[in-house]
Formats: sequence, structure tokens, C-alpha cells
Amino acid sequence: MVFVQIREAKEGDCGNILRMIRELAEFEKLSDQVKIGEEDLRADGFGENPFYHCLVAESLPGPGESQEPCVVGYGLYYFTYSTWKGRNVYLEDIYVKPEYQGQGIGSKIIKKVAEVAVDKGCSQFRLSVLDWNKRAMDLYKALGAQDLTEAEGWHSFRFEGEVMRKLAGK
Amino acid sequence: MVFVQIREAKEGDCGNILRMIRELAEFEKLSDQVKIGEEDLRADGFGENPFYHCLVAESLPGPGESQEPCVVGYGLYYFTYSTWKGRNVYLEDIYVKPEYQGQGIGSKIIKKVAEVAVDKGCSQFRLSVLDWNKRAMDLYKALGAQDLTEAEGWHSFRFEGEVMRKLAGK
Repeated sequence: MVFVQIREAKEGDCGNILRMIRELAEFEKLSDQVKIGEEDLRADGFGENPFYHCLVAESLPGPGESQEPCVVGYGLYYFTYSTWKGRNVYLEDIYVKPEYQGQGIGSKIIKKVAEVAVDKGCSQFRLSVLDWNKRAMDLYKALGAQDLTEAEGWHSFRFEGEVMRKLAGK
Repeated sequence: MVFVQIREAKEGDCGNILRMIRELAEFEKLSDQVKIGEEDLRADGFGENPFYHCLVAESLPGPGESQEPCVVGYGLYYFTYSTWKGRNVYLEDIYVKPEYQGQGIGSKIIKKVAEVAVDKGCSQFRLSVLDWNKRAMDLYKALGAQDLTEAEGWHSFRFEGEVMRKLAGK
């Protein structure tokens, strides 16, 4: 059994977080999409008005063991706004390294995000999941989440790159 | 033909914005979900660290006409973060009053949001749309947006209310 604590990420965690971002994108079969670097993560998450917040799951040595604490998962979130219910949290990424899965670490991260949401006066928190990722979907549903795409028919749309710049007339 | 300008919302627009939020929720057949009041909109959008930003579409009197400028639509957005591509804009709501639809005002709002996104160094902007709202879907696609739920299978999940508080152990 591994002892795991969930704590706020520090700037020095950015290298580990970026490695896990890449692992998650690979798992999602979308790894060509990762364009971000460690410097971006440092600048955007640890300045005066951070664009995101991050939790890390850290495995701790058991009594009498000598290995160093080791970051084995993360949850990256930010605050959003619902015109129906006000302040929200959006969990952009949640990831646990494969060799640490099945030990409740994902649930621990989700519970900590729920705690942050309640503490900040948010009425809900949201996340997105790929429809073939049954294991994640089952976990979120078991914890009480509702699939809004299924229940209400919400689709996610994106404008990006050249299309967006053209729209902007830039 | 109506002359319409897109401008940043002021605190004094909150009453109009709330009325349009309710109209939009009614159109989406989800009007029971609106729990927010004008005071929330003022506090959350016009303080020191606003939770959202808002554009309004204002119809202006033509030459020689005497009526007052009138707010006929809005676009409410905030900044989010992609672990693949960095800073994003998310357009939470976009709405044009029925009697002003079909005149390109929605496209004008979208173009202004794209401008904000480019100016703030964002690589994309996103929004969500209900699958039965074909007119909106067609507009976004015509402007170059990609339906990520269709293309990649993304589903939107939500934890809220009692479920979220229980998760948080509160």
C-alpha cells in the first residue's frame, strides 16, 4: 500500500507536471496536440494572476522506508463562471500514473477539488472526458457526476489557429 | 437595417444582461436552472479580480432617428487554460434577442471574442452548444469551428450541490 498525500503544486513541480501532461495526452491518443513547455507552465500558473491552479498527488515513503517522495498524479483546475449559478471550478486535467492507478488516488484528487470548490463558494465543478474512456466515466458517475452531453445534449466547439485569427481580422 | 456596435459591458448593463440570461435559458428549455441575481453579476464581473467579462451588442439610432441606444445581445466569456496549448477564452453565453436575429449580430460578437482571444495571446476559444440547436451549430461551423464532441468524443461532466459537498466532506 502506498501513502499518498494531495498537495498544492509548487513552481518546482512544473517539470513533473509537464511529463504527466504528455503521458495523459498520449493515453488520450492526442499527444501531437501538446505544444506547451515548462516555462509556459511556470509563467502561467505561478505569477500574480495565475491562469490555473494545480494539485499534485505525492507518494510518501512508508515507516522505515528511505525513498524520496514522488509525484504520481495531478489535477489541474481553474475558476469559471456559470450565468445560471455563478462561480464554478473546471477540472481541466486529472491523471494518475498507470502503476499507481486502482488505489483511489484519482478519487482523492477529485475530493480535494470538490473541497476547493466549496471553500471558494462555487456551486459545481465540471470536467470533460472522452467517450471511450469508460473507466474514467464510470468513476465520475460512481462519485455522483452527471454526463451533461448525454443528459442534455451539450457539444463542445472550438475555434483555433488560422480560423480564429481570420475571425479576429488579425 | 439596424446599426449595432459591440462594446464592453459596464456595471449598469447588469440588469439587461440578467434579463437576456433568463431569455437564453428559456430558449434552451433550462430556465429553472437560473439561480443568479443582478447583485451576483455586479459583484462577480466588476470587482478587482472579475470572474467573467462581458460584451454587449447595442443597437444605435440611425441618422435622424431619436430612440435611445438599446442592448440587444451579449457574449459572456472568461479565460481558461489548456495543458496542451496554454491560455484560452471560453465563451459561456452568446445571445441575440429574437427580433434582432438574422442580421449578423451573433457573428459580430464571435468576431469580437476572437479579437480578445488573439490580443490576450490565446490559441483558441471554445463554447458549448445544445445538439438540437442546429441554427447555432450551423453558424459556428460556417465560421470555422470544430465540433469536438463529434470529432473526438468529448463529454461534459458535472458534480454539483449535495453530491459535491459530500465529496468535499463538508
